[in-house]
Amino acid sequence: MRRFVISQAKNLIDQTRRCRQPHHHSNLRLLSLLRSPASDSTPVYSPRLFSSSASDMSDSSSSLPVTLDSINPKVLKCEYAVRGEIVSIAQRLQDDLKTNKDAYPFDEIIYCNIGNPQSLGQQPITFFREVLALCSHTALLDESATHGLFSSDSIDRAWKILDQIPGKATGAYSHSQGIKGLRDAIAAGIEARDGFPADPNDIFMTDGASPGVHMMMQLLISSEKDGILCPIPQYPLYSASIALHGGSLVPYYLDEASGWGLEISELKKQLEDAKSKGITVRALAVINPGNPTGQVLSEENQRDVVDFCKKEGLVLLADEVYQENVYVPDKKFHSFKKVARSMGYGEKDISLVSFQSISKGYYGECGKRGGYMEVTGFTSDVREQIYKVASVNLCSNISGQILASLVMSPPKPGDDSYDSYIAEKEGILSSLATRAKTLEEALNKLEGVTCNRAEGAMYLFPCINLPQKAIAAAEAAKTAPDAFYCKRLLNATGIVVVPGSGFRQVPGTWHFRCTILPQEDKIPAIVDRLTEFHKSFMDEFRD
Amino acid sequence: MRRFVISQAKNLIDQTRRCRQPHHHSNLRLLSLLRSPASDSTPVYSPRLFSSSASDMSDSSSSLPVTLDSINPKVLKCEYAVRGEIVSIAQRLQDDLKTNKDAYPFDEIIYCNIGNPQSLGQQPITFFREVLALCSHTALLDESATHGLFSSDSIDRAWKILDQIPGKATGAYSHSQGIKGLRDAIAAGIEARDGFPADPNDIFMTDGASPGVHMMMQLLISSEKDGILCPIPQYPLYSASIALHGGSLVPYYLDEASGWGLEISELKKQLEDAKSKGITVRALAVINPGNPTGQVLSEENQRDVVDFCKKEGLVLLADEVYQENVYVPDKKFHSFKKVARSMGYGEKDISLVSFQSISKGYYGECGKRGGYMEVTGFTSDVREQIYKVASVNLCSNISGQILASLVMSPPKPGDDSYDSYIAEKEGILSSLATRAKTLEEALNKLEGVTCNRAEGAMYLFPCINLPQKAIAAAEAAKTAPDAFYCKRLLNATGIVVVPGSGFRQVPGTWHFRCTILPQEDKIPAIVDRLTEFHKSFMDEFRD
Repeated sequence: MRRFVISQAKNLIDQTRRCRQPHHHSNLRLLSLLRSPASDSTPVYSPRLFSSSASDMSDSSSSLPVTLDSINPKVLKCEYAVRGEIVSIAQRLQDDLKTNKDAYPFDEIIYCNIGNPQSLGQQPITFFREVLALCSHTALLDESATHGLFSSDSIDRAWKILDQIPGKATGAYSHSQGIKGLRDAIAAGIEARDGFPADPNDIFMTDGASPGVHMMMQLLISSEKDGILCPIPQYPLYSASIALHGGSLVPYYLDEASGWGLEISELKKQLEDAKSKGITVRALAVINPGNPTGQVLSEENQRDVVDFCKKEGLVLLADEVYQENVYVPDKKFHSFKKVARSMGYGEKDISLVSFQSISKGYYGECGKRGGYMEVTGFTSDVREQIYKVASVNLCSNISGQILASLVMSPPKPGDDSYDSYIAEKEGILSSLATRAKTLEEALNKLEGVTCNRAEGAMYLFPCINLPQKAIAAAEAAKTAPDAFYCKRLLNATGIVVVPGSGFRQVPGTWHFRCTILPQEDKIPAIVDRLTEFHKSFMDEFRD
Repeated sequence: MRRFVISQAKNLIDQTRRCRQPHHHSNLRLLSLLRSPASDSTPVYSPRLFSSSASDMSDSSSSLPVTLDSINPKVLKCEYAVRGEIVSIAQRLQDDLKTNKDAYPFDEIIYCNIGNPQSLGQQPITFFREVLALCSHTALLDESATHGLFSSDSIDRAWKILDQIPGKATGAYSHSQGIKGLRDAIAAGIEARDGFPADPNDIFMTDGASPGVHMMMQLLISSEKDGILCPIPQYPLYSASIALHGGSLVPYYLDEASGWGLEISELKKQLEDAKSKGITVRALAVINPGNPTGQVLSEENQRDVVDFCKKEGLVLLADEVYQENVYVPDKKFHSFKKVARSMGYGEKDISLVSFQSISKGYYGECGKRGGYMEVTGFTSDVREQIYKVASVNLCSNISGQILASLVMSPPKPGDDSYDSYIAEKEGILSSLATRAKTLEEALNKLEGVTCNRAEGAMYLFPCINLPQKAIAAAEAAKTAPDAFYCKRLLNATGIVVVPGSGFRQVPGTWHFRCTILPQEDKIPAIVDRLTEFHKSFMDEFRD
């Protein structure tokens, strides 16, 4: 921790990067950081969650064998802010609201901390759920009444899927990479998206994207001498997974002033810096569209990234889970595989893993835990090792596998469900674009706040220029300043957002991540509450 | 590897344990082992799986950055025989059978390698699937036609489950430990089973039991100086997970001669032996009913195990996924928590984790990937670390969570589904008992084969006294003798079993694991084919 604070302080002095609002408090901030060594880790994870039997278990008086001193220090080091302290406070508030409604200036908790659309009222795509229900209880397919309850193409699709499963057994473990017929559908979907061939044997189906990321980290990291280049700000799955596997996160800073631009010069600089510390960088993680930053990379920029990876011998880990979430007409999602192939780089030229999830997009099927990684450019003996690790957990869940295949092969023109599917899809995506725009504009109107546009993904990541008095108050509360702000916001409004410190950020800058996911009819009230809170916060702490 | 062979040789000389058939070939076997250092690892994992793009990728000529030399050596060390080489050969045979039917002396592959009941024709429990379908496509609940298609209690249950999910959103991420209302149902089911209280806050729902085991290994293992006592033979999830997390598997040998008995003297001996090597043993893993060994522990034996863990300060990792699979009237499943509580040991006395899965029992919902671990006797600060690690992957899949709650709270007398549910359940369990008995008797009739009874679980683990000529032939083929036997069995009959070397075994003894899961009408043909093969194998190699 001490070392981190010192390196933070060094960065603070050295840094030239700043969000667009000027900061005048660097020295005092530096002082406060050095005085309060816990300030950056405290806010990230310190809930007291267990109210029953475990809460009676005093941590020191017990004679139980497992203590914080005896467990794996990599677990201790791991942090995951998206479900950290603020969410725990919110959960307690929510419980308390049920009985103490009058004690709070709000009547509900609005979870803007996590990309979890259906928890905020987004409806699932009907066709997907029809197919899932039919595959869950296949006896329905033999009943004539089913035809009155389900679209005809959902029935056709369910039959087609069942025909691809040996014995039609949706309750059986599948091939460790997932059911072959479903991987065929995914590969066809990738081909249709990219215009380049995709191989079903390259697909490893996973319970969401996270287990795929863990699998690759496990493969690539042997010790703290192995580094992974990660964007800062980053989605904390990356820092958590690298910590759990004992590697080194090599940060590259996205440039907030240019809309969170990814600069090759920054990659080069950080790679050299890591090398000088004896770290072998194994891979570059890119999140596109960005999380928490919402930018969509240009194809030209992506080409430069591909060339950089090729030249430096890095695996390109492409987090492309927001590929369907692009909201601005001047940007378009391009998969890194398409970009690499269009540059003439094939299977033998670049090692590339693309992660996809059913949790995002317009479908938002987070709870179903489905996803896949497309693994290209690895020798067969290394791929066998990936297969082996996948085999230890037998397979990902079949409902998630089915949904992943549907997401990559939705209804087509002429299908019974097509019109309603398109209406549902476009309704969700256009509403997300509207919400993003409304929230972005509202945030940019707040004193001392600047917010880049959400070109894609599901988040806004505004920069808050906090008054020095607020920073001092945070210090007194042993909390990072942005966490201090977020806690005050929660207590005043019931709105849950995640402090920028949970994603890492340029030292001395403060942000929070807020999803664009509350339903449209809730947005005006959120804007009002946020605006009112911010004004009173600034009034209270204005220097 | 060399060290392993030498230690094997040492064990072979020292050993007093033997399966009940006498062996006369120890010295020659020893010689063969020393001559063939690869003999024990080769059979476990060496498939060539990738037939398309990757197969063009010669392992050495590539300029790709990732090589076997550069990846995490823990991944290389990990082995998982249940989906190892023999299964890969079987998959290739199955593909080839489609076009070359006449080339083989059998017309189908029968997968007895893995506890995957529905892949072999076992039907899912209707009530469970009805509830799952209704929760997958909730619009069905508003349709009057649904009442003609579903049992009334499945509709009631679906409503009850939806009411426990915030916003009825089955597509949302849940609490990191699983949906609270479902954990309530599981805790109530544990209470009903054990007669002792269970706390929903102790339940961590997981995608099958495997991720729970990984999570505990990750928590408990910091380095190779941390040991986990594991039964030998063991389910290879344990050896794989310990290898991936970089710990030491400390073996304790089950006593085949006493029906795979678990002797406390053996635990003590191995614990002392580990200590003398500088290994701190953190936990004891017990699989009850046993996998691959099928024994059901007596309550008295379990009490001794609990006392041993308490005295030695070990976490008791109780793999209880086969708790519903007991086939003999003189044995009964007792959870370790019930045993510990009945001894007067509470939350502050012993650290105990019980793993449960929806993949086993009479339900066999492997593909749905559901399960939970009940975590008791940990301080609140350590539990928070477990919660944090669970949070990094957000939550287990909701379909699996729903099934886990159903498995622990099935229909009750008076419910619409009760009679059919009981008929389905008892039909499956009594048939499994019959199949176990038939296969056990058939195996015991084979020359040089002895097989303990399957009191529980889903497997038989016969000991084969292989002729010396067969051992020599295996050596020439650079294969472990039991793997040699299993490959010959596959090629002659299409029956897939797993060599004992994949589970580890007393050196110099040879076994295979065969599930009891093929449907009853297939068992006579399996017995005939196995008997005929074994006779001709023995005729070919008899000394």
